[in-house]
Amino acid sequence: MSRVVKLAVIPGDGIGPEVIAEAVKVLDAVTAGGETVFEKTPFSLGAARYLETGDTLTDDDLDAIRAHDAILLGAVGGQPGDPRLKDANIERGLLLKLRFELDHYVNLRPSKLFAGAPGPLAEPGEVDFVVVREGTEGPYVGNGGSIRRGTPHEVANETSVNTAYGVERVVRYAFELAERRDNRLTLVHKTNVLVNAGGLWKRVVDEVAQEHPGVAVDYLHVDAATIFLVTNPSRFDVIVTDNLFGDILTDLAGAVTGGIGLAASGNINPTGAFPSMFEPVHGSAPDIAGQQKADPTAAILSVALLLDHLGLRDEAARVQQAVEADIAERGAARSTAQIGDAIIARLRA
Amino acid sequence: MSRVVKLAVIPGDGIGPEVIAEAVKVLDAVTAGGETVFEKTPFSLGAARYLETGDTLTDDDLDAIRAHDAILLGAVGGQPGDPRLKDANIERGLLLKLRFELDHYVNLRPSKLFAGAPGPLAEPGEVDFVVVREGTEGPYVGNGGSIRRGTPHEVANETSVNTAYGVERVVRYAFELAERRDNRLTLVHKTNVLVNAGGLWKRVVDEVAQEHPGVAVDYLHVDAATIFLVTNPSRFDVIVTDNLFGDILTDLAGAVTGGIGLAASGNINPTGAFPSMFEPVHGSAPDIAGQQKADPTAAILSVALLLDHLGLRDEAARVQQAVEADIAERGAARSTAQIGDAIIARLRA
Ligand SMILES: CC(C)[C@H](C(=O)O)[C@@H](O)C(=O)O
Ligand SMILES: CC(C)[C@H](C(=O)O)[C@@H](O)C(=O)O
Repeated sequence: MSRVVKLAVIPGDGIGPEVIAEAVKVLDAVTAGGETVFEKTPFSLGAARYLETGDTLTDDDLDAIRAHDAILLGAVGGQPGDPRLKDANIERGLLLKLRFELDHYVNLRPSKLFAGAPGPLAEPGEVDFVVVREGTEGPYVGNGGSIRRGTPHEVANETSVNTAYGVERVVRYAFELAERRDNRLTLVHKTNVLVNAGGLWKRVVDEVAQEHPGVAVDYLHVDAATIFLVTNPSRFDVIVTDNLFGDILTDLAGAVTGGIGLAASGNINPTGAFPSMFEPVHGSAPDIAGQQKADPTAAILSVALLLDHLGLRDEAARVQQAVEADIAERGAARSTAQIGDAIIARLRA
Repeated sequence: MSRVVKLAVIPGDGIGPEVIAEAVKVLDAVTAGGETVFEKTPFSLGAARYLETGDTLTDDDLDAIRAHDAILLGAVGGQPGDPRLKDANIERGLLLKLRFELDHYVNLRPSKLFAGAPGPLAEPGEVDFVVVREGTEGPYVGNGGSIRRGTPHEVANETSVNTAYGVERVVRYAFELAERRDNRLTLVHKTNVLVNAGGLWKRVVDEVAQEHPGVAVDYLHVDAATIFLVTNPSRFDVIVTDNLFGDILTDLAGAVTGGIGLAASGNINPTGAFPSMFEPVHGSAPDIAGQQKADPTAAILSVALLLDHLGLRDEAARVQQAVEADIAERGAARSTAQIGDAIIARLRA
């Protein structure tokens, strides 16, 4: 008996469609002939759709997406400075709206320095950690405003909202993940300045730590964490942090491990109440779009995270291994499709 | 006729006293026999003082400090986890209070990769930029709170407050600095998420840019900025950013340019209404305190910033050169005092 997985596919803008094409090819290749059948529904959302229809993400879009088991997303966002997009915030209105509406409270971002990947560090050591970034709270809630806008008396506020409920669930996830990995967890925040939010995070971590005596717990201020990411990234196993610090640390982590062309992510709702969403960490890079210059590896590794999330662990491991083998032997520049094809060839070998 | 500069000296905690001792020796050496006489007043403030008296920074302390022309600070903060400091927030109550009360709206943090300094990057290229970090607003204002603390229904908020007044004055400073340097300015923020605060920053930069047509202006999201700091730090000349992003970027920048043992900073009130304060970026490092293990270079470079701020440009340049020469020839490990002495020997040579 076969299992059907309904997959919403959102290629998005810029290089999104190109990298998603390869990711879907890999998904098809690794699941071909297997028990699980992926029924894919394409959704054309993003800047291009907005420019055509004025819609970013309608209630109907959301309902349709909710009816799926998982989501694969490329990248969204138009040409920076495009005057027609001046009043559109595709990032907030589409990407963040999906994360918030689908309660993706775990933004999972693994960082691994693969053999052969060219990183910027002289002596990186072994790098293999996961950032568990909170996805539905913090400074990302959109709880801000301004008065006297455009005058010399303007005041613009942004409020970071953090709840025990929201922090605890993501912290629990991080501890459980640490137990399946190397039993080390680092909380990153800025408790000495953001005393209320930081105090909550610290207390929750200390409490949940009681239930996980095997996990060694560490705390770093976010500024110090950036130092260790470049001087001693091996010190990290699982990092748990808030939405904004997680955003910053994972781009830096991506750079340290060979570029965000390799960085995959999952926006996960662990309860299963809503479909989880898998996407490369990189953006839509409109400057190189349509030229087959983009590296589809991050999108393909996002497929591995998707497969793992769906319990297809063998398939996930096979994709991961094919990618690692490909990275280890990278030579001359290849097109987006060539990289996808090479990884598929390794899958089949 | 000699000029008298009244200097408040706050050695602070941990390695603070050791590095400040060397910084003061350098200050004395470079100004010996000159027109300017420094009258130094020591202030014993910090965790140690708090443990003795329960005071962090009293109104009397503040009044006394305000009566000075400038401040030299080492580092403040006790042993992490010291239960007696549980309810004290020395960082907020002392360091940030000084920055806020003395209206240090420019937090100036130069980053330069000196010849011979061991950085973590394989191919750093030329690194020479300055971060102009806003010092009196943003997420640092202490405008937060929590309800139902310690219960499963806790909500902890932090509000970032940004004003046209506050943003404009620091942006103007950054543009003027760019004109004295390489005419390149990068605004770093997160305008796609923090739309209100980011919108204000972006508009102010665009407006002030009109008055500085010679300065090339660039914008980066904070996450992307961390990538470039490790993959292409040469792209930066002057970075202007908010209080929190500046905190994060300057620790990372310190790491990239050979460690925060070399990173100096000035907390500047450009109007002269209040004394400006010069301090190493590093913290009090209680774990190595009192062992003559700390590198006093950041404190000594902070003296160069202090001298420059006071218009003693020759003296500032001489300290800077002596430090650069010392770094270029570093060999075996030396004590804190040995490094200070070596720099002084170069000053005298
Ligand atoms: C596009 C942007 C809103 C997004 C974020 O800040 O979360 C991106 O940087 C990311 O990390 O996925
Ligand atoms: C100690 C702390 C409050 C301070 C800050 O966050 O500004 C420090 O990290 C710095 O950068 O000077």
